[in-house]
Amino acid sequence: MPQFRVVTDPDDPAVAPFRAIKERDLVGREGLFIAEGETVLRAFVRDAPQRVVSLLIDPKRRDKLSEVFAGLPDETPVYLADQAVLDAIAGFHLHRGVLAVGRKPEPVGARDLLADLPARAVVLVLCGIANHDNIGGIYRNAAAFGADAVVLDADCCDPLYRKAIRVSVGAVLSVPTARLERGADIADLLAATGFEGLALSPSAPEILAHLKPAPRTAVLLGAEGPGLTPEVMARARTIGIPMANGFDSLNVATTSGIVLHHLRFAHG
Amino acid sequence: MPQFRVVTDPDDPAVAPFRAIKERDLVGREGLFIAEGETVLRAFVRDAPQRVVSLLIDPKRRDKLSEVFAGLPDETPVYLADQAVLDAIAGFHLHRGVLAVGRKPEPVGARDLLADLPARAVVLVLCGIANHDNIGGIYRNAAAFGADAVVLDADCCDPLYRKAIRVSVGAVLSVPTARLERGADIADLLAATGFEGLALSPSAPEILAHLKPAPRTAVLLGAEGPGLTPEVMARARTIGIPMANGFDSLNVATTSGIVLHHLRFAHG
Repeated sequence: MPQFRVVTDPDDPAVAPFRAIKERDLVGREGLFIAEGETVLRAFVRDAPQRVVSLLIDPKRRDKLSEVFAGLPDETPVYLADQAVLDAIAGFHLHRGVLAVGRKPEPVGARDLLADLPARAVVLVLCGIANHDNIGGIYRNAAAFGADAVVLDADCCDPLYRKAIRVSVGAVLSVPTARLERGADIADLLAATGFEGLALSPSAPEILAHLKPAPRTAVLLGAEGPGLTPEVMARARTIGIPMANGFDSLNVATTSGIVLHHLRFAHG
Repeated sequence: MPQFRVVTDPDDPAVAPFRAIKERDLVGREGLFIAEGETVLRAFVRDAPQRVVSLLIDPKRRDKLSEVFAGLPDETPVYLADQAVLDAIAGFHLHRGVLAVGRKPEPVGARDLLADLPARAVVLVLCGIANHDNIGGIYRNAAAFGADAVVLDADCCDPLYRKAIRVSVGAVLSVPTARLERGADIADLLAATGFEGLALSPSAPEILAHLKPAPRTAVLLGAEGPGLTPEVMARARTIGIPMANGFDSLNVATTSGIVLHHLRFAHG
């Protein structure tokens, strides 16, 4: 069972990692992250209990979370603080009433991660996705459709940022992820690990709905606006999603959902 | 050509509809709405120029908008105001530098709207979608995949709210829309107009990827959490999107994209 402890002083050193959340979102937390809300906490404890460092909750929520507590490693501290104390610790009104501090996983090399996947696998490679809603939405779809991994380039934002975790409904805590170094050659990486890169392009003659994917497929997704670089496009299989007159773009998270849905059922 | 006029006084009565935008977002504008940003303005003038009441722009943007001005009805007022004056009018820092006031379309009855569509048609019926990001995202997908209309129940939020317009990339300005009165019977409406209602349900044995849709198909989408009412579900054809272990939900806008993509190509 976890160790419950009531906190009444917002300056209690035990809850230091929960203090001034928004300010510290900006500077980072050296290997730790903050997750918030009951839905995310359930996913976190189900998928990665060993990475839960501590919880801070409103005691009013305690009864609804008994299943969560049962999933925590022994001795995990659970701090209980009334709403006013919670708000004073966090530095804003915390209407969700549930916070967790987690430990980020050790970095994994993209090449090792991809090489070790099964012979049939689908991964996402994200290039310059700098919006936390979009990255959260993409991970949510990755988890929903069982993508095997996500590879981030150096320009992607941190999926373990509070808002991205929330939008992903906790999926960023479980989908295996590797981050590339700046300048890493994505096409070389995919070739070396036997993945065919798929890139969405409005002008591609081959359309997604008819695509028969390779056993190992990597879906390349770029930021809205700039999209993928010409170098990456040139070495990928380009696929189109035809659209109605006057419209030529989809949100990148929605695109990930459409492509992953197709791959999941075309693979079957 | 439009009528250009420089505004230097934030209290100039000519720009009254642009004043205190955020406060007036909350109370409504009696048949008018505000759209912001260059991308949305382009879509607005392309799709519904007769509904543009006036524009307010930073003169620095004038050169980039010549194509937009050419599409405006003669005599449409275009007010030019420097950034500081713009900010004082709007009541916040308007980094997009482009605003439009538009006139909402006359309300259309859902029954007339649906009855008048072609023999092959796809519409969306939204139930209780109260989040502006989601409603904007759904309209964006509706436009991208050429959905013929959107029907909103009484609990949906206003798609002509500033943020929904922006997220939709202007699609809410062009997709034909009707709003139901509270208590309207959706299943009756669909039966009377020859539409088959499709409802997503995790437990449905028929899966989306294998669906052959009826000529006239209405996709029913409910809010995350509560979903569709049992009455609506009971009279719809239920369809599943199977997901990976431990995950049982997609964002509603993403769902609309996946379903519309399938229908567009299954219809072909």
